[in-house]
Amino acid sequence: MGRWEPGAAGRLHAAAMELYVAQGYEQTTVAEIAERAGVTPRTFFRHFGDKREVLFAGSEQIQHTMRAALGTAPADVSPMDAVGLALDAAAEMVGSDVRHSQRRQAVIEANAELRERELIKMATLAGVLSEGLVERGLGEREARLVAEAGIAVFRAGFEDWVRDPAGRELGSVLRESLGQLRGLVG
Amino acid sequence: MGRWEPGAAGRLHAAAMELYVAQGYEQTTVAEIAERAGVTPRTFFRHFGDKREVLFAGSEQIQHTMRAALGTAPADVSPMDAVGLALDAAAEMVGSDVRHSQRRQAVIEANAELRERELIKMATLAGVLSEGLVERGLGEREARLVAEAGIAVFRAGFEDWVRDPAGRELGSVLRESLGQLRGLVG
Repeated sequence: MGRWEPGAAGRLHAAAMELYVAQGYEQTTVAEIAERAGVTPRTFFRHFGDKREVLFAGSEQIQHTMRAALGTAPADVSPMDAVGLALDAAAEMVGSDVRHSQRRQAVIEANAELRERELIKMATLAGVLSEGLVERGLGEREARLVAEAGIAVFRAGFEDWVRDPAGRELGSVLRESLGQLRGLVG
Repeated sequence: MGRWEPGAAGRLHAAAMELYVAQGYEQTTVAEIAERAGVTPRTFFRHFGDKREVLFAGSEQIQHTMRAALGTAPADVSPMDAVGLALDAAAEMVGSDVRHSQRRQAVIEANAELRERELIKMATLAGVLSEGLVERGLGEREARLVAEAGIAVFRAGFEDWVRDPAGRELGSVLRESLGQLRGLVG
């Protein structure tokens, strides 16, 4: 169950992922997820708003984690280096269970609605980073540029890691992506 | 009517924009748009799939324009400079009518569904640029990073220009954004 605590939420999450992978996201009902987890549909709805939310339950936590890392980055660190620290923090949070990430990614890539939801998640994350950079004194347009560049690094690196983990740490793949961007843009 | 040719499509487009701005996108029906343009709803549907498509009718043309600019960029130009040429081409195409852009932006920002559609448009555009960069010999991850950085420049610059055109050319605002990104990331 990876990053999930035991208990009903963890069992529901594991059951949902198994069903999404085995029979497809569209074909899976909340009733089936609840049954497989050994709970009632009512219990499902105590933990998740709908079957899509199971896949996005960690979104706010990533936002908070990256925002906090920006907030505690030393004041003399450059904006892009501060974003690098936020990426380290994100990697620490989501990089511990590559198998879970692979399965989640496969489910999302197979469904247009989920791909859109993932885009929104990433745009929201860019907005959060951007706010944090403005608080560090950056102008709005600059903040947005650096934040979106950081999210591009996150997405490209994350997808690369999911496709081919090969014993690599997510954090170092993200660092490598950031270095690539620097070489290509600068 | 800005970039629109006269004729039914142009009249429908102008009528739709007026109604979206005056009474809101949600509140506007295809029947009202057609009536204002002096045509039948059937004529509307010969030109647009639905009322949302009126706002996104130019998407494919921007894709083609940017892709073509990448394709004709000299081989010895760096990936980011090639993207800069694609941004110039995009600015040439969408930078001629700031009042239209301002109205379109206001309509989109007021509606969650339209904001999502705009995100998808931008992600698609990044995908198109990325393919073009791979064709120029760049690795996949590098291509994606440069493409997404380019789209970040486009979005940040475009929104800045729409908010405060002040006699500026879109092309020079995009160039300025690209320079900013270089200074911040490199």
